[in-house]
Amino acid sequence: MPKAIQDPIHGSIKVEDWCMELIDTPQLQRLRRINQIGFANLVYPGANHTRFEHSIGVMHIAARLADKMTCDERSKMEVVAAALLHDIGHAPFSHSSEIIVKKYLRMEHEDVLPLIKGTELEDVLNDAGLRPRKIAELVKGPSIVSGDIDADRMDYLVRDSYYTGVAYGVFDLMRLVDKIYFDGETPIIDGSALRAAESLLISRFMMYPTVYYHHVCRIARKMYEKAVEYCIEEGELEAKLLLKMDDYDMVAFLRSRNGYAGEVMELIDSRRLFKRAIYVNRSRVGIEKINARRAEVEIAAEVGIDEKYVIVDAPQVEEAKELKAVVDVDGQRMKLEDVSPLVRALKEAEKDILKLGVYTKKEFVEEVARVAVKYFNIERIPKQKKLDEVLPIW
Amino acid sequence: MPKAIQDPIHGSIKVEDWCMELIDTPQLQRLRRINQIGFANLVYPGANHTRFEHSIGVMHIAARLADKMTCDERSKMEVVAAALLHDIGHAPFSHSSEIIVKKYLRMEHEDVLPLIKGTELEDVLNDAGLRPRKIAELVKGPSIVSGDIDADRMDYLVRDSYYTGVAYGVFDLMRLVDKIYFDGETPIIDGSALRAAESLLISRFMMYPTVYYHHVCRIARKMYEKAVEYCIEEGELEAKLLLKMDDYDMVAFLRSRNGYAGEVMELIDSRRLFKRAIYVNRSRVGIEKINARRAEVEIAAEVGIDEKYVIVDAPQVEEAKELKAVVDVDGQRMKLEDVSPLVRALKEAEKDILKLGVYTKKEFVEEVARVAVKYFNIERIPKQKKLDEVLPIW
Amino acid sequence: MPKAIQDPIHGSIKVEDWCMELIDTPQLQRLRRINQIGFANLVYPGANHTRFEHSIGVMHIAARLADKMTCDERSKMEVVAAALLHDIGHAPFSHSSEIIVKKYLRMEHEDVLPLIKGTELEDVLNDAGLRPRKIAELVKGPSIVSGDIDADRMDYLVRDSYYTGVAYGVFDLMRLVDKIYFDGETPIIDGSALRAAESLLISRFMMYPTVYYHHVCRIARKMYEKAVEYCIEEGELEAKLLLKMDDYDMVAFLRSRNGYAGEVMELIDSRRLFKRAIYVNRSRVGIEKINARRAEVEIAAEVGIDEKYVIVDAPQVEEAKELKAVVDVDGQRMKLEDVSPLVRALKEAEKDILKLGVYTKKEFVEEVARVAVKYFNIERIPKQKKLDEVLPIW
Amino acid sequence: MPKAIQDPIHGSIKVEDWCMELIDTPQLQRLRRINQIGFANLVYPGANHTRFEHSIGVMHIAARLADKMTCDERSKMEVVAAALLHDIGHAPFSHSSEIIVKKYLRMEHEDVLPLIKGTELEDVLNDAGLRPRKIAELVKGPSIVSGDIDADRMDYLVRDSYYTGVAYGVFDLMRLVDKIYFDGETPIIDGSALRAAESLLISRFMMYPTVYYHHVCRIARKMYEKAVEYCIEEGELEAKLLLKMDDYDMVAFLRSRNGYAGEVMELIDSRRLFKRAIYVNRSRVGIEKINARRAEVEIAAEVGIDEKYVIVDAPQVEEAKELKAVVDVDGQRMKLEDVSPLVRALKEAEKDILKLGVYTKKEFVEEVARVAVKYFNIERIPKQKKLDEVLPIW
Repeated sequence: MPKAIQDPIHGSIKVEDWCMELIDTPQLQRLRRINQIGFANLVYPGANHTRFEHSIGVMHIAARLADKMTCDERSKMEVVAAALLHDIGHAPFSHSSEIIVKKYLRMEHEDVLPLIKGTELEDVLNDAGLRPRKIAELVKGPSIVSGDIDADRMDYLVRDSYYTGVAYGVFDLMRLVDKIYFDGETPIIDGSALRAAESLLISRFMMYPTVYYHHVCRIARKMYEKAVEYCIEEGELEAKLLLKMDDYDMVAFLRSRNGYAGEVMELIDSRRLFKRAIYVNRSRVGIEKINARRAEVEIAAEVGIDEKYVIVDAPQVEEAKELKAVVDVDGQRMKLEDVSPLVRALKEAEKDILKLGVYTKKEFVEEVARVAVKYFNIERIPKQKKLDEVLPIW
Repeated sequence: MPKAIQDPIHGSIKVEDWCMELIDTPQLQRLRRINQIGFANLVYPGANHTRFEHSIGVMHIAARLADKMTCDERSKMEVVAAALLHDIGHAPFSHSSEIIVKKYLRMEHEDVLPLIKGTELEDVLNDAGLRPRKIAELVKGPSIVSGDIDADRMDYLVRDSYYTGVAYGVFDLMRLVDKIYFDGETPIIDGSALRAAESLLISRFMMYPTVYYHHVCRIARKMYEKAVEYCIEEGELEAKLLLKMDDYDMVAFLRSRNGYAGEVMELIDSRRLFKRAIYVNRSRVGIEKINARRAEVEIAAEVGIDEKYVIVDAPQVEEAKELKAVVDVDGQRMKLEDVSPLVRALKEAEKDILKLGVYTKKEFVEEVARVAVKYFNIERIPKQKKLDEVLPIW
Repeated sequence: MPKAIQDPIHGSIKVEDWCMELIDTPQLQRLRRINQIGFANLVYPGANHTRFEHSIGVMHIAARLADKMTCDERSKMEVVAAALLHDIGHAPFSHSSEIIVKKYLRMEHEDVLPLIKGTELEDVLNDAGLRPRKIAELVKGPSIVSGDIDADRMDYLVRDSYYTGVAYGVFDLMRLVDKIYFDGETPIIDGSALRAAESLLISRFMMYPTVYYHHVCRIARKMYEKAVEYCIEEGELEAKLLLKMDDYDMVAFLRSRNGYAGEVMELIDSRRLFKRAIYVNRSRVGIEKINARRAEVEIAAEVGIDEKYVIVDAPQVEEAKELKAVVDVDGQRMKLEDVSPLVRALKEAEKDILKLGVYTKKEFVEEVARVAVKYFNIERIPKQKKLDEVLPIW
Repeated sequence: MPKAIQDPIHGSIKVEDWCMELIDTPQLQRLRRINQIGFANLVYPGANHTRFEHSIGVMHIAARLADKMTCDERSKMEVVAAALLHDIGHAPFSHSSEIIVKKYLRMEHEDVLPLIKGTELEDVLNDAGLRPRKIAELVKGPSIVSGDIDADRMDYLVRDSYYTGVAYGVFDLMRLVDKIYFDGETPIIDGSALRAAESLLISRFMMYPTVYYHHVCRIARKMYEKAVEYCIEEGELEAKLLLKMDDYDMVAFLRSRNGYAGEVMELIDSRRLFKRAIYVNRSRVGIEKINARRAEVEIAAEVGIDEKYVIVDAPQVEEAKELKAVVDVDGQRMKLEDVSPLVRALKEAEKDILKLGVYTKKEFVEEVARVAVKYFNIERIPKQKKLDEVLPIW
């Protein structure tokens, strides 16, 4: 019998021997110690799951999908390998380090080829007759690992929902997987799974404001980001180490710092985070492009505090790729958003998720709010700030 | 310890002694034998649940809500009683008999007062010091039993979803119940439950096309409706008996008939139902109001068959009352649809659920389709007919 | 894409075309209207599921198991067909009619060959190239449909648990299915699924007293049994009709009777059942074999009431066949009960499930109890009667 | 509205303001970073949950139980506080550090008074009018936080099951909580919850071998234990720091060591653990009391390797306290094990869980096995070693 790993989401996951060898490499084992959704456990105490179990989940879904592809066996195995390896490029606390990696290493976490070449991973892949370059391409996508409708998001939406306890993310995953077929390498959703595909979009729509963009998660992330950046700028940390470190290394490192980084880590450890000075719908702010960095400096200067204590957060949610997924309606191939009025509705509604937040230490909140309102030319601190405050918890 | 009833949805439900006496009346016991969603088990074989367990579920939710109301104890008990009794006015196969009851008895199933007066139910209520008239008013609503956001739909969306196996109906019921507070008798949803309230609407949006308006359910329902009506018109069945009969009585009665009613029952028993001749979005049909009855007669005449074998189905989904539910956003009270872009989106998307269907015996499908397309002036039998065909199952 | 049926337990179940033809026969369609566990819905209001959905569930499990057998394709199909047809021999209310069928028709519900021969079923099987005789043998077992460890009980334990809301029945069904392999036609449980196999036994152990042998279920069943038998003895009902009738037919028939049968049906309809006069562990009764029939007559005579109002119930739980299931422990094949101390423990504990019950109309309870205690030579009405009373509900 | 924390197990948990203040102390926040079940995530990748969420879960259950006690409000609050604080005495990786804390600090993790006195916790308790001494007593038990049947194990059995994905741990928690009443401070289980109480024992019986005593978890734990002890003995680590450190501190510390501790941490990080040389039922070993320490030294000497590379593990499962829980059977109070034949059976079966394991580095396995078999006088390396090997996974 092949080995199996027990997973709370997918149950017993079969693991082929060659996959087990990949799992046993340091690159994969490191993912055991990288939290899947950064600091979300400050809001949802159950959210301690890791990139490791997620990677195995994605492998499981990808294997079921690859089974249906018409390509040769090697290509199928490469899809499975890509699923397993798709997240080895993550730095500590996953997306929380993303901007830093991009800025200092000029890499995306999907750039996995350099992390494979010349390592034990490359040997294992070679032994299995698989091509690292092909795998790296699959990770970049478009592919069933990363594309309009892919194994990655199918796993994380359900998984993140399971561990946060936010039931919204539950959708009929297996129904959807069962109903996807392939035209070459392009996945096509059979029309009978339209509701399941819509559910995927709903899950996404629900999870973004409730979990991924919850203001407490954003605040912790931005504090962490600023602290790490500070250490890099000051020469205390070499950026390229980010891809070797795990959460334990990073926490230990930050705790060991004096000054800003140490202070931030202590605030996170004790859950005494910055507070919101302002928090408004992006659409209320009369400027299209916000230069967050400059805004931080200028607001801090006006208030008369160190700019490290002002965070301006203007996140952008990228358009859901799922909108473009292909649905087979009675032989006719159409984009999901063209078939489904619900999906179009969600696309429209999603615009309101975007918020502009200005965060600072508790003692500066009022002053920073006063200045920021003027700076961004917001008429008044709007009511919906409060709605958001009560939203999920704490 | 108070008695308890084990329910798959809510777990162990406590039942006060006076409630148990209500449950032990013939009116409530009859609901054990009335299917909750008519003929949906022809599509979803698990959908054999009854109005009885639903009534107990609604009682359970209503009791939790009533607990939070500021009114006196008697009024709270009346809310609970209304929840328990809200469905005693249903005829066999629940909504499948609704139009007939309305037409021949000039009653809605919410008219429960005549069914209480002069019966054992009245005695039990009197003994408990409760007012039948007040209870009947609560059943009619607006109230927590029947209103913008009520215990009835909170139970049935989850329950129907559980038994059909359609996961879409799952929403965070208890979160919503916990977050409702009262201003007098008006339920107010605390802003922190906005996502849960949205989920309720999503469930509704998903359940309607997939279950309640699934074409096979509609076909069986309309066949049954026509058969019962035929019996009433022919003097074989007294309409007022409908409120005494249960599903067993009705099935036995129809099986005992010769002619149309017996034929229909046999077709339902053997699951050899009428087929769709046409099935199109209402919006594609160039006439606002359809006189289904007349259309049946005229189409049948043109084809040259008995009009009993043509069914024209032009259902209307009433607007979701939940849209008007009041949400407390930072002390400000707003309608759900004004707070939530998602809800507005769903409202818009819901229009596409409405379909015009023309059904007939298998052997007449082509001919009836030809005539009906002309009759309703539909350009061509549109493609989405097929989408719908594959939709959920069979 | 093959058709699919949505099932609350197994999700989307694929149905091959030839299976769909079997499902469309009257014999299978009739199972839609036969309650899976008789009158258990008098205790568990959600227990309205039918032999139909159960049969489809068994088909689903059997298909997954057959896939792993090494026999030819036809033999695999026959396993699937046997799974689908294994319950067509059930009479109304399933096991509640079992004793009557055995007594008057000298048949077990597993004797399906006579119900296939000469019917539409035989034609469908022939068209698919399958042998009715072989299928009937598989239904009788031992086979994967009916044996030590079989698809039948794997489905019903989970399904009955789902609809009663009794969580005890949940075990890791799919883990077990995945870990069974075959030696010829003998299923072998891989040692790594030992815990899952134990769970199956625990489920069984929990479900028997809580659901299948709950005293209210027993009382309703015995009342029904006596009523039907009475009708047969009086010549009002032909025994062989039992295999044609469904629950609707039977309820309508009994309601139409005057005298005892009509009275019983009304008592069941209104849930005003006989009560327990005595209810004790079998082990407390100092006689090995009880002649229930004679006891009823003699107790009734002594009390001076009609023997129809005394029911003596001395059920026997047959030994769990699962005990003998073969487990592969490191290449060595052993019986489950020899491998697992837990299973041995359960076997021992199961003896206490057996109860002797004497039931009668409410007004005779005290008198009947007095006489029965003497008749069975029970020292006193033991305390655990009360424990049982409170056990699950009502 | 009171604040709420979203928990995957219990849903939305209400948190009183004074509880939130306790939660905000460093002692509670530290528990966020201590894994609930040590190194079990090496076997079950989802098992990353922490003592923090567990503590909140125990608080939730304890609050529901305290509600039913007849004591004054302050005493009830103290029960809730004790639930929240019951685990602040845990060192990194929870039970994995237990033996070390006991040996070097002469403390149990239930000794919380010294950790409260003179800290912020004491202030918060004082402000709420609660007595630290009383709370510490409740943590020690017997109490509803720690006793025959307590909130602690009710939470952890379900929680550990949820995160490991081992379904066996699911029992009807809320049914049990609902059915417990109090006689003074003694919890009594109403007889109607007997099955639920039995389920608790079954969960325990299933979780011990599958999760808590899984050999991989034991190996990692013993390796860690030996590494930490080594550091203490060598003066590299002050034992009393253990109660201040969290998992991050400990991992960083061990990684920073040269020699044995660093080697062990690297083996754990890369999941290249010691292997089993022998692994047999305790009952097969002909000596009652095993001096594990001495055995390690002697076996290592005989093999000729450093004794740090030999681990002898002879764990003892303490008898389930639940056996003594009081059940109210018809007014009579009896011990659970006296009421339930199943529970007695489980007690008997549990003896077979105990295993003697000897672990060493891969390259020494054969040699160590040879010596250990002789040392412990085991006839042969028994077959069930292999059964265990396949047991759950990897």
